[in-house]
Amino acid sequence: MDIGLIGFGGVGQAFVKLLIEKKKYILKKYNLDLKVKYIVKSDGGIYKANGIDLEEVIEFINKNKSIKEHISWKNDLSIDEIIKNNDIDTLVELTSTNIENGEPGLTHMKRALESGINVVTGNKGPIILKYKELKKIADKNSVKLKVGCTTGGALPSINGGLYDVAGSEIQAIEGILNGTTNYILSKMSMEEVSYEEALSQAQKDGIAEANPSLDVLGYDTASKMVILANVLMGANIKLKDIEVQGITEVKLETIEKARKENKKLKLIGKVQREDNMVKAYVRPIEIKEDHPLYFVDYKNKGVYFKTDILGDISIIGGASGTRNAAASILRDLVLVKSLE
Amino acid sequence: MDIGLIGFGGVGQAFVKLLIEKKKYILKKYNLDLKVKYIVKSDGGIYKANGIDLEEVIEFINKNKSIKEHISWKNDLSIDEIIKNNDIDTLVELTSTNIENGEPGLTHMKRALESGINVVTGNKGPIILKYKELKKIADKNSVKLKVGCTTGGALPSINGGLYDVAGSEIQAIEGILNGTTNYILSKMSMEEVSYEEALSQAQKDGIAEANPSLDVLGYDTASKMVILANVLMGANIKLKDIEVQGITEVKLETIEKARKENKKLKLIGKVQREDNMVKAYVRPIEIKEDHPLYFVDYKNKGVYFKTDILGDISIIGGASGTRNAAASILRDLVLVKSLE
Repeated sequence: MDIGLIGFGGVGQAFVKLLIEKKKYILKKYNLDLKVKYIVKSDGGIYKANGIDLEEVIEFINKNKSIKEHISWKNDLSIDEIIKNNDIDTLVELTSTNIENGEPGLTHMKRALESGINVVTGNKGPIILKYKELKKIADKNSVKLKVGCTTGGALPSINGGLYDVAGSEIQAIEGILNGTTNYILSKMSMEEVSYEEALSQAQKDGIAEANPSLDVLGYDTASKMVILANVLMGANIKLKDIEVQGITEVKLETIEKARKENKKLKLIGKVQREDNMVKAYVRPIEIKEDHPLYFVDYKNKGVYFKTDILGDISIIGGASGTRNAAASILRDLVLVKSLE
Repeated sequence: MDIGLIGFGGVGQAFVKLLIEKKKYILKKYNLDLKVKYIVKSDGGIYKANGIDLEEVIEFINKNKSIKEHISWKNDLSIDEIIKNNDIDTLVELTSTNIENGEPGLTHMKRALESGINVVTGNKGPIILKYKELKKIADKNSVKLKVGCTTGGALPSINGGLYDVAGSEIQAIEGILNGTTNYILSKMSMEEVSYEEALSQAQKDGIAEANPSLDVLGYDTASKMVILANVLMGANIKLKDIEVQGITEVKLETIEKARKENKKLKLIGKVQREDNMVKAYVRPIEIKEDHPLYFVDYKNKGVYFKTDILGDISIIGGASGTRNAAASILRDLVLVKSLE
């Protein structure tokens, strides 16, 4: 498999490191030879027609040297040159998420798919905004668009819906898909601290970002629900179609009252079919022990599929971090080419 | 997809009923037209070159009429004729499990795979005994051998290992894979009854069989662990390589003591890599709340994968019954042909 990598931030770098580590394993287990020909950033990139020496690139990173000093660096390298050269079969798109207009990822993906190149991505923006359109281009060109990394990283939420419940009809999907908010709610419940204190602790522990608003207001979860609904339930909803309530107003008293009744307050994203429509919401909900996601605590994530003929199936876990997000990109690469 | 169905017991009949119900959905969602050309039993079968009218067959069943009275019934119909006619691409093998020599399923599968016909099966016997050999024949002939139904029916335990953790290395698999024993242990714990009473209740409720020995002695779980190890971890173990202990000796006192310590006794099947070997056991084990399968109670099932780069992923649920087992056959049919 000849790969172009576009976007070289945290996950992109972790992906290159992972490839070095797992190349032999993937070749042996899947008979799949992963070769990276391009590593492209916003201001240029590296190209090697017979495959970049990834260990050399990581040496630059480890020594805090800019990869602009790499001998194969070219200032004008971009998606245009990748398309023109016509020598990759798969684009790994890992530029930063832009939920306003999806750019530059959206253009990268469109151009690749139109040129008969598979796309594997962890970039939520274009997928939230334009999945249907991109999928149509992919189908028309008989290539794959794999987005497993966009809805919980290592948690196989997209896979679950594509493969684990294949043949059945998904009636509803529920998820605890945001580790930061789940961590805060778990901490409030287990350690009896206020929202503000739990958030501040989560920030100190490196779990919540300095500006946590996308997480705590529920929009990260909502974005993932849009993607799950559109990819797995044939919907075509947008972020604005989802009723979103975050956890910023959650009071410790509410959580303590719930706990006394053996309930837990969780930030649940749910999408379900109602009268031929697909409806979705994100809000804090009290769930009981019989709920399949009741025991998804702290940074853990989970997703739950309600189906017509296979029953209810829940998938829980998957480590979080850039290495594990990179592992979910690797998973999708394997699934593009080699399926049992 | 042109299908030959061989074996027409509980799951076979449920499969035919399910096809009638889901044919349009599968055609629309996966662009997959499922046509059954053969329904073969041990003493003959039905063949229609342009597809059997399944509703008519189910009418025979519903009216308690033997399908031998069907106009297309032939006494000499067998795998030989299916192979000779060379007009199916997929064999659904659902004859009874025989764990002594795998027959007649083993021969059916071999002949189909050798003739370039995909095999989808819920028949554990040949898969426990000869998976490696059958898989080699499948690979050689560029066809698929799908066995998802053999290790927990609707629970996607095989899928989990093939797709959800693709690209990662599975270090260990643990499962609660037998609904009957889990039901008995849950009942003992929640209702404080002895093993004998819980078993007798389970038999009355139609959950345990009149002769429950394969379940309660742990061999059903052990069979599933053999299959998971061989299909997902590249092992080549046999039933005799597994240390098996069932639940017949479990005392109520043990369970009550465990409960007081917030533990639960579960019949766990585990397979793990140890020094380049794959080792497996089945035995009742006390697990704590932090174990991913702690909340798998009563008839529920679950499986848990420990991986190197995706973390720990558990899959829980899937309804049990012939209809749901048939749904897992349908899932594998979809996965044979149509993969995103």
